[in-house]
Amino acid sequence: MAEKDALKVLESTLAGRGIDIKAVKEALKGQAIETPSWAYANSGTRFHTFGQAGAARNILEKLEDASCVHKLTGVCPTVAVHVLWDFVDKTVAEAKACAESLGVKIGAINPTLFEQSEYKFGSIGSPDARARQKALDHLLYSVDIMRECDSKFLSIWLADGTNYPGQDDLRQRKHRVAENLQKVHGALDDDMQMLVEYKFFEPAFYSTDIGDWGMAYLFCKKCGPKAKVLVDLGHHPLGTNIEQIVALLIDEDMLGGFHFNSKKYADDDLTVASVQPYEFFLIFNELVAAAGGGSAYDVPYMIDQSHNLKGKIEAMIQSVMNIQETYAKALCLDRKALAAAQQKMDIIAAESVMKDAFFTDVRPLLGAVREEMGLAPDPLAAYRESGYQGKIEKSRS
Amino acid sequence: MAEKDALKVLESTLAGRGIDIKAVKEALKGQAIETPSWAYANSGTRFHTFGQAGAARNILEKLEDASCVHKLTGVCPTVAVHVLWDFVDKTVAEAKACAESLGVKIGAINPTLFEQSEYKFGSIGSPDARARQKALDHLLYSVDIMRECDSKFLSIWLADGTNYPGQDDLRQRKHRVAENLQKVHGALDDDMQMLVEYKFFEPAFYSTDIGDWGMAYLFCKKCGPKAKVLVDLGHHPLGTNIEQIVALLIDEDMLGGFHFNSKKYADDDLTVASVQPYEFFLIFNELVAAAGGGSAYDVPYMIDQSHNLKGKIEAMIQSVMNIQETYAKALCLDRKALAAAQQKMDIIAAESVMKDAFFTDVRPLLGAVREEMGLAPDPLAAYRESGYQGKIEKSRS
Amino acid sequence: MAEKDALKVLESTLAGRGIDIKAVKEALKGQAIETPSWAYANSGTRFHTFGQAGAARNILEKLEDASCVHKLTGVCPTVAVHVLWDFVDKTVAEAKACAESLGVKIGAINPTLFEQSEYKFGSIGSPDARARQKALDHLLYSVDIMRECDSKFLSIWLADGTNYPGQDDLRQRKHRVAENLQKVHGALDDDMQMLVEYKFFEPAFYSTDIGDWGMAYLFCKKCGPKAKVLVDLGHHPLGTNIEQIVALLIDEDMLGGFHFNSKKYADDDLTVASVQPYEFFLIFNELVAAAGGGSAYDVPYMIDQSHNLKGKIEAMIQSVMNIQETYAKALCLDRKALAAAQQKMDIIAAESVMKDAFFTDVRPLLGAVREEMGLAPDPLAAYRESGYQGKIEKSRS
Amino acid sequence: MAEKDALKVLESTLAGRGIDIKAVKEALKGQAIETPSWAYANSGTRFHTFGQAGAARNILEKLEDASCVHKLTGVCPTVAVHVLWDFVDKTVAEAKACAESLGVKIGAINPTLFEQSEYKFGSIGSPDARARQKALDHLLYSVDIMRECDSKFLSIWLADGTNYPGQDDLRQRKHRVAENLQKVHGALDDDMQMLVEYKFFEPAFYSTDIGDWGMAYLFCKKCGPKAKVLVDLGHHPLGTNIEQIVALLIDEDMLGGFHFNSKKYADDDLTVASVQPYEFFLIFNELVAAAGGGSAYDVPYMIDQSHNLKGKIEAMIQSVMNIQETYAKALCLDRKALAAAQQKMDIIAAESVMKDAFFTDVRPLLGAVREEMGLAPDPLAAYRESGYQGKIEKSRS
Repeated sequence: MAEKDALKVLESTLAGRGIDIKAVKEALKGQAIETPSWAYANSGTRFHTFGQAGAARNILEKLEDASCVHKLTGVCPTVAVHVLWDFVDKTVAEAKACAESLGVKIGAINPTLFEQSEYKFGSIGSPDARARQKALDHLLYSVDIMRECDSKFLSIWLADGTNYPGQDDLRQRKHRVAENLQKVHGALDDDMQMLVEYKFFEPAFYSTDIGDWGMAYLFCKKCGPKAKVLVDLGHHPLGTNIEQIVALLIDEDMLGGFHFNSKKYADDDLTVASVQPYEFFLIFNELVAAAGGGSAYDVPYMIDQSHNLKGKIEAMIQSVMNIQETYAKALCLDRKALAAAQQKMDIIAAESVMKDAFFTDVRPLLGAVREEMGLAPDPLAAYRESGYQGKIEKSRS
Repeated sequence: MAEKDALKVLESTLAGRGIDIKAVKEALKGQAIETPSWAYANSGTRFHTFGQAGAARNILEKLEDASCVHKLTGVCPTVAVHVLWDFVDKTVAEAKACAESLGVKIGAINPTLFEQSEYKFGSIGSPDARARQKALDHLLYSVDIMRECDSKFLSIWLADGTNYPGQDDLRQRKHRVAENLQKVHGALDDDMQMLVEYKFFEPAFYSTDIGDWGMAYLFCKKCGPKAKVLVDLGHHPLGTNIEQIVALLIDEDMLGGFHFNSKKYADDDLTVASVQPYEFFLIFNELVAAAGGGSAYDVPYMIDQSHNLKGKIEAMIQSVMNIQETYAKALCLDRKALAAAQQKMDIIAAESVMKDAFFTDVRPLLGAVREEMGLAPDPLAAYRESGYQGKIEKSRS
Repeated sequence: MAEKDALKVLESTLAGRGIDIKAVKEALKGQAIETPSWAYANSGTRFHTFGQAGAARNILEKLEDASCVHKLTGVCPTVAVHVLWDFVDKTVAEAKACAESLGVKIGAINPTLFEQSEYKFGSIGSPDARARQKALDHLLYSVDIMRECDSKFLSIWLADGTNYPGQDDLRQRKHRVAENLQKVHGALDDDMQMLVEYKFFEPAFYSTDIGDWGMAYLFCKKCGPKAKVLVDLGHHPLGTNIEQIVALLIDEDMLGGFHFNSKKYADDDLTVASVQPYEFFLIFNELVAAAGGGSAYDVPYMIDQSHNLKGKIEAMIQSVMNIQETYAKALCLDRKALAAAQQKMDIIAAESVMKDAFFTDVRPLLGAVREEMGLAPDPLAAYRESGYQGKIEKSRS
Repeated sequence: MAEKDALKVLESTLAGRGIDIKAVKEALKGQAIETPSWAYANSGTRFHTFGQAGAARNILEKLEDASCVHKLTGVCPTVAVHVLWDFVDKTVAEAKACAESLGVKIGAINPTLFEQSEYKFGSIGSPDARARQKALDHLLYSVDIMRECDSKFLSIWLADGTNYPGQDDLRQRKHRVAENLQKVHGALDDDMQMLVEYKFFEPAFYSTDIGDWGMAYLFCKKCGPKAKVLVDLGHHPLGTNIEQIVALLIDEDMLGGFHFNSKKYADDDLTVASVQPYEFFLIFNELVAAAGGGSAYDVPYMIDQSHNLKGKIEAMIQSVMNIQETYAKALCLDRKALAAAQQKMDIIAAESVMKDAFFTDVRPLLGAVREEMGLAPDPLAAYRESGYQGKIEKSRS
């Protein structure tokens, strides 16, 4: 009863803002969030990995878990994979078939360029020609996997950089990275994209070959139209206005997609929206504004987190819900009122519009959306009641 | 009609959390937020001060504006003053009488230790004995003003530090600061407190004599029981967990009060809760938790902002409302559920309790509280309708 | 005697590294460092400006001081000017004539786009069309001044940005800035350059219209070949690898020049090389490497500092000497040994080469260079002995 | 020949500063730097550990390598150990005997409180009573080891904290940590010390139980006179003035010792002095100043680094040499001239004194010192020539 009342109050509020609730609901139903296979497996900090009972041990189990998340949320139809982690004991064809049998699809292909001894001084940026060749081969192999999986996105993150002043020639590293990325671009089909990720630091501590959005942008431009910039929310210096970077990349038609997570200091890989929910809303606001207010800018929205303490699947469902709520809030923003306040340079009024949207409790709306999709209104509660966790803890021990 | 429904839904939500709404309302009515006289006058960055029509030009006008804010919000009964800015053309007695005639009181006394040529190398930390003496004299004079104003708080911020390695002996500076603070402490009456503020940097750029909470704590301990630490929200390195510092200072009985504002990078002096509203909620959560859940820890809550673009008075009302809402949210947190989740080490459940409180739209409740206090439900709208701004723009030109 | 021995030892060391000392001396004699007119006048933090006896009060006095610095150091032939600060009581022609009579020239022209009430919400990025027009007019006027002064560099720093989420549309601001910069570019003669400066934050605290090198780069590319990026050492987030940005901009042929200074946290405008001398060396190392090892990359090297505590002229001479020494160290780096170590991926050997150069005491060499140029070997000591400071303190009171 | 000349010039320079070169040499001979056992074994980032040929695989091999470093440098007589890493396959008595047979001694004992499943939510700060008891038992066992090893320092670093707001009660965590540290303090013999390390973040990402020097200080004070603060150079927010913290802790008689390393952004565990050599010099300057100028403040100087790319032993020798050189530079500072400049508030003169010391090339002096100690003048070159690396690469495969 209370929920119905809450929904009514919300509907009345949104009507007051001129929001088309039906359209919002449709937008929410159409949202797609990609979960990463590696988030279902054990992970840790450099100090320790606390193994979790039931954590997925191979690609099949990861796909099972991703499928479970999709069944409960209805908005996670694809799964990002990491080449050397996921295509080891199973072939690509087997993984693809498994995914489809579980009602999900393979999403972005992530080459694995940082876990072999040859990559000690970098992969495609290394001064060692053999390392570069190995990395390039792996990238090209990843493109083959894309074809086999019908995946459209190659998600490239380089761990490349240096630890000490003088260790390598910074301009030469730039040339090596550019040259190899260009080769990868050349191997892509026309409907494929390579997403070039940047990161401020770690695991390289002095210089990072793709250290900020500007460098990623530059490399993409050198490659061609199939290269776009991937934004990971944990990869910026403190104090960075990420939403401005997002707006800029959209404006330049160079935004390629997201890795969602959250951080307090560095690349902490925490649950998205857990530390700075308002910042995340401001990012989504740009995505919705750029799409005209009624949907979000059309790029892949991928989660990239490392839950070391929370239950893997619960944390993923929570993350998806956080993203859904934030998207809903951005859809519920009164853009006419915002534009009017901006035109009058009335900062306080503009802020009010932003805060009104941010503090809108959209959960009744999302509950309704989920019920219309034939889902439980609270996916997290549904998961806890489903017995899935108990089952995998037994079967995977 | 819609507002009544919203209030009902809110009441039902809060009842579900076991919240005593009447008690929450009483707590909100009893809140006291101190506004600073200097925020009503023109201010700027080091690049420029954009003068505002109607900005207060002297202590009397500042008190008028503070009184206006108090009349509209009902929770701002006191006004912090800065000695050299406010007691220049009017005597302390005149200012005090003026305040009282306007229905407010003088609050914390802020000595002014950074605007005279003697303070080039610091005030009580200066290597120049005359500077130190002048600063000490000013501090003791400020204590006299406290007595005259019946003010209980001496709010000490030092601009002291050095700009270059080698400029001064760091341990000697520490001794000088300690020695003089002790003298000030000795001059306080038993019911007075000195609040020692820390700041990470600026205007000193290499070392700052009271640079973090630990240094402020240490100086206070050297002084005695009347010295406590003042927390300014803009005075920490990026990434600092401020709520943890607040919890710690409370636990040590060393929290003296707050300077509320907000920042994205440095000491930006923006409107409180404008950039990281969740962080501000987490701070208030500690204050309410420490007071048992039904009120906030009993220290002076002062605003210290510098609104260079927003209308001075509007920005102050907005700030007060942000604080009220955040306090209300913290009062609406289900502490039993939180404690239970913490005991089970169920991180996700604990986060849910936090987010439930944070995203509670408490504005209907605050509207009701204000109406019960005989105020307009929306003080900002009331101000805009009041004609006050037009009046001062005319009379103060 | 001791100095001669030191020089001999140094020469022997450098010979061991295969350094052509004569060439190094010639490079040092040919160095040009531009000092800014505003650094000779009083300046301060937002908290206070401590006036200095003898500080220059107008363009003529500023030029006198700049000329004094040039006479003592021999490497400061040009003076950057700020349009609204310097061409107020004197005409451009008068200033130019004065400069020439003093043996210096007007260098970069800095439009002043942040000190008038119209610029409250920005200059060329403002939502207010009148503000944008005024700013554009001022920029075009600055190009006229360039012609009149025979100045080749227009040094553009915008204070533009926003303080609060929602205050303005971020993409529209970007469009406005681009459009106006393009107009300025169109007005430049073929042998002129506009240098576009970026800054992470301040005085805008939420978003900054040209916030990082990537944005500056993008705007320059939209303008055309006469636009290049200006790097100010105080305008990056903490932890940024500035030398990597410098190397990248050089590699893209997009480095326009420098504003030298130093910082510990934010844009502190301290004496260059005073806080992180090794970082400054690493930057110079890229500049010398890019020029082939025997000179520095050919862009304007400008100082932009704000000495609030140090004597203005002394601080400027100290700054110039710091730059000279750092340049000399970079010239004394054994680039063959470095390349060899890099090729072998011998990090420790590469670091040794860097540190050998950095810790080379080049002062005897610089002393010799100055003597060959007919100057005193220690310009700072020469200034202290010159009586100039006493003279201006008297004449300018 | 050249080296002799360089030494002569250096001696003449130091004589000019009033430095007693003999005393400096004696101080340098008496220096003691502790190397950590774990730095001789493989280590990595959270992304990968690149195994090194010849890396030590157990405590005996680690002691061999530490002994090798001591033999070449003469100043590394002790080795820090980590309880669960080093006393697994060998007993404490065996390790002690092995160390002594190799001419070194066991130094600080580091309890290992972060690698077992019970510590998922913390060790002595955990909400789980069993985890706390296990951690306390381990700490008390570590004190037993101290007795058996005749070690005087218990070096406590906690990985404790939380990842999410609400996860745990911050004040309760503080109480738990305090209570258990007090118990450990109670178990120490009178000549033992516990060194309490703080860290800004990682592996806890939201709150860290001992997050800054102030918290470490507070815990130590609650324990008693045998507890002191341990400073790790990589554990501060960016922009922190570490030398000021060192000066303060010395002044309060609360400095317990150091973990030396270097960083550019976070806890990067790079070679000490590799990124900001001047900062490291400024820290050493405080240590020498506090000891009167002729030696360094008497606390354990321990290295704590993680060399993932450099050769383990070479990097350790390089680190030791960097520390020696920095110490030597601080010993060569003209403290009378510095004090005089400070007294006159002559910032530039004070800086000159600092830079004169920092840029003194002390390597000829250290070469001489080593030769007087019967060592090779360049320990790194001596290592490369020794054949040790080849030997262990063979024997440890």
